[in-house]
Amino acid sequence: MPKIFTENSFLQSSDIVNTYADKHTPIIFCDTTAIRNKKMRVKVTIGNQHMHPNTNDHYFTYIQLWSLEKLIAEVRFQSGAFGCKPMKPEVDFYIVPQVSLHLTAMAYCTKHGLWKSEEVYVKVTD
Amino acid sequence: MPKIFTENSFLQSSDIVNTYADKHTPIIFCDTTAIRNKKMRVKVTIGNQHMHPNTNDHYFTYIQLWSLEKLIAEVRFQSGAFGCKPMKPEVDFYIVPQVSLHLTAMAYCTKHGLWKSEEVYVKVTD
Amino acid sequence: MPKIFTENSFLQSSDIVNTYADKHTPIIFCDTTAIRNKKMRVKVTIGNQHMHPNTNDHYFTYIQLWSLEKLIAEVRFQSGAFGCKPMKPEVDFYIVPQVSLHLTAMAYCTKHGLWKSEEVYVKVTD
Amino acid sequence: MPKIFTENSFLQSSDIVNTYADKHTPIIFCDTTAIRNKKMRVKVTIGNQHMHPNTNDHYFTYIQLWSLEKLIAEVRFQSGAFGCKPMKPEVDFYIVPQVSLHLTAMAYCTKHGLWKSEEVYVKVTD
Repeated sequence: MPKIFTENSFLQSSDIVNTYADKHTPIIFCDTTAIRNKKMRVKVTIGNQHMHPNTNDHYFTYIQLWSLEKLIAEVRFQSGAFGCKPMKPEVDFYIVPQVSLHLTAMAYCTKHGLWKSEEVYVKVTD
Repeated sequence: MPKIFTENSFLQSSDIVNTYADKHTPIIFCDTTAIRNKKMRVKVTIGNQHMHPNTNDHYFTYIQLWSLEKLIAEVRFQSGAFGCKPMKPEVDFYIVPQVSLHLTAMAYCTKHGLWKSEEVYVKVTD
Repeated sequence: MPKIFTENSFLQSSDIVNTYADKHTPIIFCDTTAIRNKKMRVKVTIGNQHMHPNTNDHYFTYIQLWSLEKLIAEVRFQSGAFGCKPMKPEVDFYIVPQVSLHLTAMAYCTKHGLWKSEEVYVKVTD
Repeated sequence: MPKIFTENSFLQSSDIVNTYADKHTPIIFCDTTAIRNKKMRVKVTIGNQHMHPNTNDHYFTYIQLWSLEKLIAEVRFQSGAFGCKPMKPEVDFYIVPQVSLHLTAMAYCTKHGLWKSEEVYVKVTD
């Protein structure tokens, strides 16, 4: 519709389902405090313990970085960008915050749809 | 058509023109050797000595990463991603090379069109 | 998170709010039956009775076309693509259906976030 | 680098090469006169006489619409958007011209790189 999945959509599931959820879930890594108008790095990877396939018909097409309802940036991968072996997609965005951020990442898998990270709050001060 | 500009399009120009060219030119930073099937980082920034404006009508919309005629990945920025002050757009792509790469970055400025980096050759070995 | 808005998010509101919702809502126009492997047109416009602004800081960046959890295609507009006067963003996608479709459109406004159309069911037969 | 191909890159070639060039070449269809601030349709298709494959590893990822050095809009296709049989990718953009346009379309094939249409001049008057 599309539905938006999170790791929590599949709590208390079997190991197979947990692995499925883990390898589709975007994770944000960044400082939780930042200086206004000063560039900061926001890393997004997909998958905590498990790696996602990378084949022509099954790979992550994009990762978007949002703050609440505001789109900030997105990365798009062509199939093959990660070779043909399973791995964790990864990107480092650099952004210049004006106000405190409530970051979420949204990532699209060509077979299993749209997945959302947990929210990360970044307090921005002068 | 579009024309594709490079820093070399403006050699032996005035300081103003050199600054204009510098702040629009993408630059690739990465190792020039890599291991097949092993993730490597490819940083792209725009501008060497000078910073580019970031306003709603004048900012970089996207940076693409190519190897010869093959598109690998691209990042898209919304206006505001870099605040409202001049700065150097930046992104780190992570890719998994299969064969040696001839990387170029192409970046689009909403006022001044499409700009291309110098090519970086990455030798990939087992 | 982002929230995804629909016209129904604002039922029984004031005229101002109804206008606000109307001019942000994507609408899909296409036949509701189609032939497998035969190209069909899917038009998406935004706004039924009201037109959306088109300024550098307030315009629709993209419209995505989905069938359930599957992304099919998307269009991206640069600011200025629609001039500087209010209008209804519009695109015609052409797709070749394999199976019956549950189409929704998702559109992103730079000021007011992500908006979703009603679902259109397209029955695909041989 | 990437090179940008056109149908003219392959003049006086064998039939096989001509077919190859034809099925990769974007073609713009639109009126060559338009009214300022009035919406106009710009259709882009790929291939004149021949159809392009549509498989997971060989399809057109995007079509961009430019006026000289200005990007106006682009469409992105997911693999599968055109089914699995050869066909001509197609999109209708709607734009609102402010000044006369020199339109070109650029399209990216995942196997054979970046292809450019002939330029279409659109005279815009009040």
